[in-house]
Amino acid sequence: MVSQIPERIEPGMPDQDRTATGLFGGVFARGRAQPTDTAWLQAMLDAEAGLARALERAGLAPAGSGAAVTAAARAGDFAVGELGRLAALTGNPVPALARALARRVPQGAAGAVHHGATSQDIIDTAAMLLARQTAGAVLADLARAADAAAGLARAHRSTIMIGRTLLQQAVPVTFGLVAAGWLASLDEAREGLVAVGSRLAVQFGGAAGTLASLGGDGPTVAALLADELGLAQPPLPWHTNRLRIIDVASALARVTAALGTIARDVTLLAASEVGEVSEGNGPAAEHGASSAGPAGSSAPRRGGSSAMPHKHNPVAAIAILGCTRQVPGLLATLLSSAEQEHQRAAGAWHAEWEPLTALLRLAGSAANWAAELLGSLVVDVSRMAANLAATKGLPLAEHVSSLLASALGGAEAHDLVAEASQRAVAAGLPLRDVLLEVPKLQDRLSAAGITAEQIEAALEPVGYLGATDHFITAALEAHQSLEARLAKEGRDG
Amino acid sequence: MVSQIPERIEPGMPDQDRTATGLFGGVFARGRAQPTDTAWLQAMLDAEAGLARALERAGLAPAGSGAAVTAAARAGDFAVGELGRLAALTGNPVPALARALARRVPQGAAGAVHHGATSQDIIDTAAMLLARQTAGAVLADLARAADAAAGLARAHRSTIMIGRTLLQQAVPVTFGLVAAGWLASLDEAREGLVAVGSRLAVQFGGAAGTLASLGGDGPTVAALLADELGLAQPPLPWHTNRLRIIDVASALARVTAALGTIARDVTLLAASEVGEVSEGNGPAAEHGASSAGPAGSSAPRRGGSSAMPHKHNPVAAIAILGCTRQVPGLLATLLSSAEQEHQRAAGAWHAEWEPLTALLRLAGSAANWAAELLGSLVVDVSRMAANLAATKGLPLAEHVSSLLASALGGAEAHDLVAEASQRAVAAGLPLRDVLLEVPKLQDRLSAAGITAEQIEAALEPVGYLGATDHFITAALEAHQSLEARLAKEGRDG
Amino acid sequence: MVSQIPERIEPGMPDQDRTATGLFGGVFARGRAQPTDTAWLQAMLDAEAGLARALERAGLAPAGSGAAVTAAARAGDFAVGELGRLAALTGNPVPALARALARRVPQGAAGAVHHGATSQDIIDTAAMLLARQTAGAVLADLARAADAAAGLARAHRSTIMIGRTLLQQAVPVTFGLVAAGWLASLDEAREGLVAVGSRLAVQFGGAAGTLASLGGDGPTVAALLADELGLAQPPLPWHTNRLRIIDVASALARVTAALGTIARDVTLLAASEVGEVSEGNGPAAEHGASSAGPAGSSAPRRGGSSAMPHKHNPVAAIAILGCTRQVPGLLATLLSSAEQEHQRAAGAWHAEWEPLTALLRLAGSAANWAAELLGSLVVDVSRMAANLAATKGLPLAEHVSSLLASALGGAEAHDLVAEASQRAVAAGLPLRDVLLEVPKLQDRLSAAGITAEQIEAALEPVGYLGATDHFITAALEAHQSLEARLAKEGRDG
Amino acid sequence: MVSQIPERIEPGMPDQDRTATGLFGGVFARGRAQPTDTAWLQAMLDAEAGLARALERAGLAPAGSGAAVTAAARAGDFAVGELGRLAALTGNPVPALARALARRVPQGAAGAVHHGATSQDIIDTAAMLLARQTAGAVLADLARAADAAAGLARAHRSTIMIGRTLLQQAVPVTFGLVAAGWLASLDEAREGLVAVGSRLAVQFGGAAGTLASLGGDGPTVAALLADELGLAQPPLPWHTNRLRIIDVASALARVTAALGTIARDVTLLAASEVGEVSEGNGPAAEHGASSAGPAGSSAPRRGGSSAMPHKHNPVAAIAILGCTRQVPGLLATLLSSAEQEHQRAAGAWHAEWEPLTALLRLAGSAANWAAELLGSLVVDVSRMAANLAATKGLPLAEHVSSLLASALGGAEAHDLVAEASQRAVAAGLPLRDVLLEVPKLQDRLSAAGITAEQIEAALEPVGYLGATDHFITAALEAHQSLEARLAKEGRDG
Repeated sequence: MVSQIPERIEPGMPDQDRTATGLFGGVFARGRAQPTDTAWLQAMLDAEAGLARALERAGLAPAGSGAAVTAAARAGDFAVGELGRLAALTGNPVPALARALARRVPQGAAGAVHHGATSQDIIDTAAMLLARQTAGAVLADLARAADAAAGLARAHRSTIMIGRTLLQQAVPVTFGLVAAGWLASLDEAREGLVAVGSRLAVQFGGAAGTLASLGGDGPTVAALLADELGLAQPPLPWHTNRLRIIDVASALARVTAALGTIARDVTLLAASEVGEVSEGNGPAAEHGASSAGPAGSSAPRRGGSSAMPHKHNPVAAIAILGCTRQVPGLLATLLSSAEQEHQRAAGAWHAEWEPLTALLRLAGSAANWAAELLGSLVVDVSRMAANLAATKGLPLAEHVSSLLASALGGAEAHDLVAEASQRAVAAGLPLRDVLLEVPKLQDRLSAAGITAEQIEAALEPVGYLGATDHFITAALEAHQSLEARLAKEGRDG
Repeated sequence: MVSQIPERIEPGMPDQDRTATGLFGGVFARGRAQPTDTAWLQAMLDAEAGLARALERAGLAPAGSGAAVTAAARAGDFAVGELGRLAALTGNPVPALARALARRVPQGAAGAVHHGATSQDIIDTAAMLLARQTAGAVLADLARAADAAAGLARAHRSTIMIGRTLLQQAVPVTFGLVAAGWLASLDEAREGLVAVGSRLAVQFGGAAGTLASLGGDGPTVAALLADELGLAQPPLPWHTNRLRIIDVASALARVTAALGTIARDVTLLAASEVGEVSEGNGPAAEHGASSAGPAGSSAPRRGGSSAMPHKHNPVAAIAILGCTRQVPGLLATLLSSAEQEHQRAAGAWHAEWEPLTALLRLAGSAANWAAELLGSLVVDVSRMAANLAATKGLPLAEHVSSLLASALGGAEAHDLVAEASQRAVAAGLPLRDVLLEVPKLQDRLSAAGITAEQIEAALEPVGYLGATDHFITAALEAHQSLEARLAKEGRDG
Repeated sequence: MVSQIPERIEPGMPDQDRTATGLFGGVFARGRAQPTDTAWLQAMLDAEAGLARALERAGLAPAGSGAAVTAAARAGDFAVGELGRLAALTGNPVPALARALARRVPQGAAGAVHHGATSQDIIDTAAMLLARQTAGAVLADLARAADAAAGLARAHRSTIMIGRTLLQQAVPVTFGLVAAGWLASLDEAREGLVAVGSRLAVQFGGAAGTLASLGGDGPTVAALLADELGLAQPPLPWHTNRLRIIDVASALARVTAALGTIARDVTLLAASEVGEVSEGNGPAAEHGASSAGPAGSSAPRRGGSSAMPHKHNPVAAIAILGCTRQVPGLLATLLSSAEQEHQRAAGAWHAEWEPLTALLRLAGSAANWAAELLGSLVVDVSRMAANLAATKGLPLAEHVSSLLASALGGAEAHDLVAEASQRAVAAGLPLRDVLLEVPKLQDRLSAAGITAEQIEAALEPVGYLGATDHFITAALEAHQSLEARLAKEGRDG
Repeated sequence: MVSQIPERIEPGMPDQDRTATGLFGGVFARGRAQPTDTAWLQAMLDAEAGLARALERAGLAPAGSGAAVTAAARAGDFAVGELGRLAALTGNPVPALARALARRVPQGAAGAVHHGATSQDIIDTAAMLLARQTAGAVLADLARAADAAAGLARAHRSTIMIGRTLLQQAVPVTFGLVAAGWLASLDEAREGLVAVGSRLAVQFGGAAGTLASLGGDGPTVAALLADELGLAQPPLPWHTNRLRIIDVASALARVTAALGTIARDVTLLAASEVGEVSEGNGPAAEHGASSAGPAGSSAPRRGGSSAMPHKHNPVAAIAILGCTRQVPGLLATLLSSAEQEHQRAAGAWHAEWEPLTALLRLAGSAANWAAELLGSLVVDVSRMAANLAATKGLPLAEHVSSLLASALGGAEAHDLVAEASQRAVAAGLPLRDVLLEVPKLQDRLSAAGITAEQIEAALEPVGYLGATDHFITAALEAHQSLEARLAKEGRDG
C-alpha cells in the first residue's frame, strides 16, 4: 500500500456529522471533519496502526501484525473518559492508549504496538491527520463560498453602489467589485491551505529523536510509516521544531481572516440603515424547520430574536465573526508554544493541543457558515441605488475635483470642492446646485473655463467607476486559473 | 429569600466531578466546578428560574410561578445537543431553551419564563454564575497551595541553595525564600480573585438595555433578580460594557501567571542536572492505581514515559504549564472582544463564550494541580548543598567584591573579582585559591589591607544571605493576615 | 523627606510635550507623560538617585551623597544612543548607566551609586515611576472624558433614538442612555486605574533578591527607597512575581477597552447612512490651523481625505481604535512573560519592556483623544428622529408583542407580530397599517379584545423607554459618588 | 526602467546603521534595514516617486516629472516631527507629506505628486518596501546562522551528549544532531521568508479601490508602478484584504519561532549546572570594547552583571528571547486587524502600522543576534561527557528495555527496567550494578536468557544512537539543496 505524499489536501474526506453536538455546537462546530475527542482518538489509533503496518513491512513485526492492530484500532471500542483520566498520570493519553490497544490484539501482534515510538510521535502524527481532514472539509466549503462569490461578482458587475471608507460614503463602486474582492481573498486563502498540504509530515523519532530503539532500522520504518499514512517524511524528527504546527495554524488563520472580513462587510451592509444585503434562508433555517414540532413553536425563527419579533439578524455572518475573532489569540498561543526546549518540551508541547483543536474546529465552522452565507445572500439593488443618491452628489466630489485640477491645480481644486461640499452638507443641497448656483463658486468655475455640462457629467456615478470592470475581470480570471490548477492537481495527484 | 451580594467568592461550592471527562480531561479539566456544557445549561436555567421568582415577587407573575419554573429548571431534563443545533437559528441557544422551558411548566407559569429578558441577559448572567463557581473552586485549591507553600517556607527557612539569575548560578538564597516568593504570589492572586467577587453582577436589560417590556417595573425586577441569584446589581445593564468579563478573566489570568511561574521553577529545579526538587505521589497517582486492573498493567506509572522506563517526569508541573500557557491568548481574545457596538454586538459578544469557558476550565485545572504539586513536593536538601558547592566559591564573588569595594572603590573591586572569577573558571580552581594564591591578585589585596581571613569569611554562603530571613517572615506574616481577613469575611458573610 | 505611598495616582503630574514626536506620533503618542526613551532614562536616574538618598539616610553613604547623585541624575546629560549601544553588552542599559552616573558625581558620592542594586531593581522601579506618570495623565484625560459623557447624558436624557442590536434596529433608547453607558464604563475604568496605585511598589532585592550586599541593612534601605520615591514597599522583592506589571497593564487595558467601545460607537453613529453624531473641531484641528503656512495649504484639513474633498472622517475615533486595538496583543505578551524562572529570568523579563512602554503610550494617547472626542461631539437630534421614523414602527414591534402577550400568550403574540413585521417589510408599509388593516391580523386582534387605540399607543416610541430614565440617573449618581470620593482622597492625600 | 517582480527577497540590500539608536536599541534594534521613522518616511517617498515616474511613463504627467519628484523624495529633507504632528489631522502622515512633497518640486511636476492615490496606497506600498528591506537583512543573517549551525552539525556529528525530554535526562544523542535540528528549522524559516517575496505587491486603488480619478488609465499606471518599485501587481487593490500583511508577519514569526527555540536551548545548555555551551565573544563585545573610554571602565563587560562579577550571562540568547517573545502578541494584533470593513477600514488599518514595524524590527534584531550567537558558540565536549556519565546508565534504560522486550514482551520489560531504575536512583548505584547484582532481577534476566555481556553492551551510549547519523546527514543535504537553489535563483533573477 503505497500512497502519495499529498501535495495538496483532498477536499473529499469521508463525512462525519454535519453539525457537532454541544450547547454551542450549532454556532462553533459546524461542517464535516470536526476534531472531536473521538476524531482525535481515531487519529491516534490510525497512527498506531500505521506504525504496526510499517513495522511489519520492515520485517520488524510478525506477518499479520499490521492487519491485527489496524483491526483493533477502532475509536468506538475505547473508553475516552477512562483514557482521559489516565492521561493525568503521564501528562497525555498515549501511554494508556498504547497499553489498551496492545491488550486488544493477539499476543503475537502486541509487540508491534507503539514499538519505537514515544507519545509525542503518536499525538503529533494524529494532529497532522486531523489537520488534513479539517483542511479538506474547509477547502470544500471554501470552494462553494468562492463559487458563490464569483457568481455575485458576475451578476452584479454593474450594480452601482456607494463605496465607503472609514465608514463614510466615498466614491461609487459596484457590488460586483465588492464580491470580486471577497473572491480574491477566498482564493488566496484556498491557495495557502492547499500549499500547506506538503507540510503535513509524519512525526517519528522515539524517545529523543534518534529512533534508537529501532537500531539501524529507524529511517526505514519512518519512511514506511509516512507512506502508510500518506504524510510527508521530514529530514529529521520535528519534536521541538514546531514550524509545521505554525504553518497549519497560519494557513487556517488566513482562512478565518478572509472570512471575518466578508462577514463584517455583511453585518454592516445588512445594518438597518444600509440594508443593501440580507441573509437568505440557508440550510440552518431548513434544519430548524424540520426539527420543529407540529405546532411549529419548538424551534425559534432563523435570525429571530428572543425579544424582538421584527428582527432579521444576519446569523451566519455573526456566527462567522464569533468563530474568526477567537483565532488570533489561539494562533498567538501556538506561536508562543513553539519555543520548545531540548529534545522534547515540558509544557509548551502540551499547551498546543487545545488551541490547535479549537483552531481546526473554528475554521471548519466558519467556512461552513460562509458557504451557506454567500450561497444565499440576498442583494437589494434598489437600496444600493437609493443610498448612493442620498448624499446628493457628494461622492462624486473627487471626480469634480479631478475635473477642476487640470484647470486650477490639484490643491486649489481640492479646496474649492471641499468648500462646496461643506456648503452642500450645511444647506442640505445637492452638490450640483452649490457648484452651479453659488455665485462665488460659479464665477471661479467660469473663470477656469469649466461648463455646467462638464460638472453635470462629472456628477454621474456610472462615469466614475474607473478600473472597476477591469478589476472584476482580473479576479474572475484568477479564480478560473485557480480552479483549473486545482482540478488538474486533483486529476494528477 | 434574600441573599447577600458576595463581597467575596465562597470557596465551598457544591461538588462536581473531580475530574472532567474528555480525552485530555485529566490534564486540562481537573478540579471542581468545571464549566461543562451541562454546567452552562444549568446556569442559564438558574438565571431563568431566578427571573421567574423575581417576577413573582414583583407581582408580575402568578403566585407559584417562580417555584414552578425553578422546579422545571433542571439541566438533566433538556437535550443539550438539540439545543446546540437550534442555536444555529438564532446564534445562541437561549431562544430554544426558553421555549423548551416554557413548555415544561404549567400553563399559568409559562408567562414568567424569560419575560422581559433578552438572550444576552441569560447568557451573561449564567457566565457570572459559572465564574462564581469556578472562582470558589480555584480559591479552595489556592488556599491549599498557599498553605503548602507556607509550610515549605517555614520548613526550609535556612535550607541554603544557590540562587540563579539568567539561568546562571548567582548568590546563595534559601529554599524557604523561594517558597516564600511562591507564597506571596499565590496570596496576591487569591486577593485579586476574592476582590473580583463584587464585580459579579446580574445582567438584565431586555432587548436594548431599557427593560421597556416591563414598563416601569424593570429596575424593581432587576434588583429582585440580583437578590435571587446573589449577584451585584449594576447601575445600568452592561450589554456592551465588558469590563466585568475582563475583570473575571484578568483575575484568573493573575492566578495562572502565579501558578505558571511556580510550575516553571519546579520543572527547572527538577531537571536531572539540578535535581533539587521532585514531585511526590499525589492523588493523580492514587487515582491511577485504583483504576488499574488486576494485573496492574492497565495504568501507566505516574510520571512515567511510554518509551523510557527510568523517567520520573514532573507531570503536575508540566500539566500546569500546559494549562497556564493557553491563558494569555484567551485573555487577549476576550479583551479584543470587549469592543462591542451599539446596544448589543454582532459577533464580538459571541466570541467571548468559548475563551471565557476555556479560561475558567484551565484556571480551575491549574489550581487543582498546584495544590497537589505543592502539597507533595519532595525537597532534596543535600542536592541543594552539592550544587552550591559545585561552583567553588564563585557565587560568593559578589560578597568578596563588596568587601573589596570599601578599600578599592566599586568599579575596581568589581573588575578585580571578575578577573579572579574568570581565572578560577579557566583553571577549575576554587575562587579562594585564586584570590589568595595568585600573586598579582594577592598583592592587590594585601595592599588594600584585606586579610585571608576576611576573604575566607566572605566566601561562607551562610554569611551572605542578607535579608533572606526578614523577607520570609514578611511573606508569612502577610499570609497570616490574609488568612485572618478571609476567615473574618467568611464569618461575616 | 517622607512622602506617602500613593493610595491613588495623582492626575496632576508635571507637563511634558503634549504631542510626542515621531512620524506617527500625532496618532499614537499624544497626551502628557509619554514614556519616551528620555522619560525612561530619567526614571532610571530617579531610581538611582532615590537609592543614593536612601543609603545616605541609612548611614551607608556619606552625607551629601544623596544630593550629589540627585543633582547628577539629569537625563539630558546622558547620551541615550551610547547607552543603548552598550546595552548590547549586558542585555540592558543599567550597567553602563550606573558607571556613567558614578563618573559624574564627586569621588565620595560614587560609592552611593547603584550600591546594593541589580539592574532589574532600577528598571522595574523606573517602570513603576513611568506607570505612575502615565496613569496620572490618563486619569486627568479620563476625568475630562467622563465629565463630557455626563454632560451628554444630561443634555440628551430625552433625545429619542433607535437602539441597535446586532446592527439591526431594535427598540427605542435615548442618546442620554448611550452616553450614560459610556460614562459608566469610563468611571469603572477610572476606578481600576486609581486602585492600581497601591500596587506600584519599589523593586529592590539585589542580585538574587536577598540584598546580601547590604548585610543586615537591606530592609531598612528598601523602606527608605520606597519612601523617597513614594512607592509602596512589597513584603519581598518581586523580581519573578510579575503580578504588579500585570496589574498595571490590566488596568490600562480596561481603560482602552472602555475607550475602544466608545470610539466604535462613534464611528458607526457617524457613518454616512446613520449620521447621528459627528466630530467637532477639537484641539487637533486648531493645532493644524496654527501650524499652517500663510497660504493655508501646508496643513491638511482636519478629518479630510487626501483623495476625497467632501469627506469628514471621525479622526479622533479612528485614532482611538488605532491605539486600543493594539492593546490585547501587548497584554498577552506581558502575561506570557510573567512566567519568570528562578531568581531572575533569562529573556522573559527583557520581553516586558517594549510592550509595557507601548501600552503606556497607547493608553495615554487613546485617553487624550477621547477627552477631545467627547468634549466636542456634535449630536444631530433631527437625524436621530428621522432614523427612528424610517422603519415605520417596526422597532415598536416588541411593545405591541407585549401588549398582545397578555391576551394571546407570549409565543403566539411573538409569532403574530413577527408575521406582521415581515409583511410590513415586504410591502414597505408601516407596521400600524399592517396590524390594523390586514383583515386576517385585524380579526385576531379583535378576537383578543385589542383596540386600534391600544395598538397606536403601543407604537409611540416615547411610551416604550422603560427604565431609560432610571438608568441614566443611576449612572450620573454613581459618577458623582466617584467624583466626590476622588476629590476627598485628593484632599486627604 | 523595468525591474523584476522579486520571486525571492534579495539579501544584499543597502546598508543602514548596524545598530539603531534608542535606549534599548542595542538589544531590540540590531541588524541592517531597521524600520525606523526615517526608513518609513523614505519608503513613503519612494512610493510617491515611483508613482510620479509611472504617471510620466503612462503619459499622464509631463516629461521630467518622475525625475523631479524622485529627486525631491529624500527623507532627510522633511521634518519627521512636523509630519507626525500633522498626522493628527487626518489620521496618517501622508496628506501632509504629499503636500510638502508637491511644494518641493517644480510647478509642472507638482501635478504628478500623489495623483490617483489615496493615503493607504502610499503607506501599504511603503510597508511592502520596508518588508522587503528587512526580509533581505534577515535572510542574510539567517544564512550566516544556518552556515554556523551546519558547521556545528558537522563538527559535532559524533559528540555524544545526553538528550533531555521534559527537562529530564532521557537517552543519548549527539550535539551534531542538536545542531542539525537547529539547522533544519533555520532552513525552513528561510524558505518561508524567500517564498513571501512573491506576495509583496504594490497597493494602488485610489479612494475606494477603483482608481476612478485616473479614468481608464488606472490599470496601466498600476502596472507601471509595480514595475518601478519591483513589487508584484495584484489582481485588484487589497485595501481590506490583508492577507499580504499576514503573510509577511507569519513568515517573520516563523523566523522568530525558530530562533527562540535555539536561544532557549542555549540558555538551558549554558545553565551553570549543565554548562555544555557558552557564548563566545562576538561583535557585540568588540563593539563595546571599541566604544570604551581610555580607562576602559566606561563599558561593562560582555555578559557581565552589574552586581555579580563572576557571571557570564548568555546575552545574545537572552536578547533573542527578549525579541522573539514579543512576536506572538504582535502577530495576533495584525491578525485581529485583518478584519477591515467596506472599501477602507476605520481603525483596523491604523492599528497595523506599529505592530508590523515592531515585528520587522524584532525579527531583524533576533536574526542578527543569532548569526553572532551561532557563529561564536563555544561547545564544552568534556562537560557533555560528564553530564552523560552522571546518571550512571539510566539513560540507557530504554536500550536495556528493548533488549529485554524480545524475551519478556514490551510491557513486562518496561516495568522490570523501571523497577531497576528506581532502585538505582534510590540507592545511588549504576543501573548496571542493579541489573546484574540484585538477585531478584538477575534471576529474571537469566531466566530470559539475557547475559551480562548483553546488558553491558546495551549500556554503552555509542551503541544507542540509532538514526542520529542518518538524520544529521539528511539535514545537511537539505541545507545544501537549499543553498544551491537560492544561489541559482540569485543568479537567474
